Amino acid sequence: MPLLDLTKLVVVMVRPRNPLNIGAAARAMSNFGSRHLRVVNPFRLAFREARSAVGGSAVLKNAEEFDSVADAVADCALVVGTTAIRDRKLDPPPKMLDGNSANIIHSILKQGRVALLFGSEKIGLTNDDFSYCHWLMTIRTHSQNISMNLGQAVAVCLYELAREAESAAPAEKRELPSAEQLEYIAKGLLEALHISGYVKPGTDKMFEKKARQLILKMNLEAYDAKLFLGMLRQILWKLRQSKKASG
Amino acid sequence: MPLLDLTKLVVVMVRPRNPLNIGAAARAMSNFGSRHLRVVNPFRLAFREARSAVGGSAVLKNAEEFDSVADAVADCALVVGTTAIRDRKLDPPPKMLDGNSANIIHSILKQGRVALLFGSEKIGLTNDDFSYCHWLMTIRTHSQNISMNLGQAVAVCLYELAREAESAAPAEKRELPSAEQLEYIAKGLLEALHISGYVKPGTDKMFEKKARQLILKMNLEAYDAKLFLGMLRQILWKLRQSKKASG
Repeated sequence: MPLLDLTKLVVVMVRPRNPLNIGAAARAMSNFGSRHLRVVNPFRLAFREARSAVGGSAVLKNAEEFDSVADAVADCALVVGTTAIRDRKLDPPPKMLDGNSANIIHSILKQGRVALLFGSEKIGLTNDDFSYCHWLMTIRTHSQNISMNLGQAVAVCLYELAREAESAAPAEKRELPSAEQLEYIAKGLLEALHISGYVKPGTDKMFEKKARQLILKMNLEAYDAKLFLGMLRQILWKLRQSKKASG
Repeated sequence: MPLLDLTKLVVVMVRPRNPLNIGAAARAMSNFGSRHLRVVNPFRLAFREARSAVGGSAVLKNAEEFDSVADAVADCALVVGTTAIRDRKLDPPPKMLDGNSANIIHSILKQGRVALLFGSEKIGLTNDDFSYCHWLMTIRTHSQNISMNLGQAVAVCLYELAREAESAAPAEKRELPSAEQLEYIAKGLLEALHISGYVKPGTDKMFEKKARQLILKMNLEAYDAKLFLGMLRQILWKLRQSKKASG
């Protein structure tokens, strides 16, 4: 299950203040296969510092600077603004970041570019910025603390957008031991319990079942069954020695 | 559609170096309703700096410090390690972060704590750290750039875990032992292997990991763990006797 294609997604950071956040956004973009970073009116120093960072990604080096949101989104077929909502009454209300909003974005990405806007650390996007957006999107967060760190918000959005819609997980491939191998283990454990005095006379039958059930519930893979049997055999060998010595 | 309950999730940061990342993890935790942050062997200065940060969240102020992974996860019923995989061949292969792995984690969160481990910025979790994990989990990223920023990785994981699944499978109801109880079993098995001569001198460390992994993979219920530990203790008692007699 590969990542969905985000090469035509354009991440637009509007008035970012902190170079670390510009760098963090760029890093998340390369993690999830998104390439086009655009910044609108950044604090110049922050942008230069971020772009010249040692080890900065190709995303960062190719980041473009724009004077207005209008210019930054001009070639995009869909413009989506992100917001933490807060006290503003927004109409229409933002869509939640989830599989449904991701589907809408991907249907447009098949035809052209989609801009995803992130506002500044302090105040987010303004009503003026919103006016360039087809719709708004928000990350569902805890009511006690709705405002996310900018770099983390970018990472979470791109993760959701790159994420393939889910079907059931394919069955795990496990090589299993034979019932006979498991019975060896159960028998070995039982003998060790006998020699060590765990099994009291007359309770053999009950403990045989208990030991077998315990081993079956362990649900061991073939390799682990072999490993465990080897350990048990060595312990048994030692116990038998001590029995001989004392007997 | 509210967020899923993450109050019993424990985020464990192992050897974090950068106070900004500790702060970022704490912020993402409060965004998604997770409260328990534990740090193992942080660079002291980094931890103090992060904890005393102005505007630091309650999560950060209540963060606990531990000397070992074993101590940090002792009260957890499930321990999940995160990894970017890289060149290491891991067996079993990590599960992808998705609705399926989230379902497994939530089925355990209904009964007890789940630890989610994050390694240091540079090298992630070590093989030794892995040995305390029931299984590993990875975020699906672009092959060109698989390694995520630590704070962003925490945010993405918590977003996925807090996110309502489309159609969750009904959770199995199993009472699970704590990581501490399983550690007792692993230690007991290891001592038995020592006395019986299974562990050759100089291979202790390797066998310690092997024994711990074997016990974790058995996926024992609380009742069976108690039963197995009782058996092991009796066998050990007998082995120690023979050791005394021969020594």
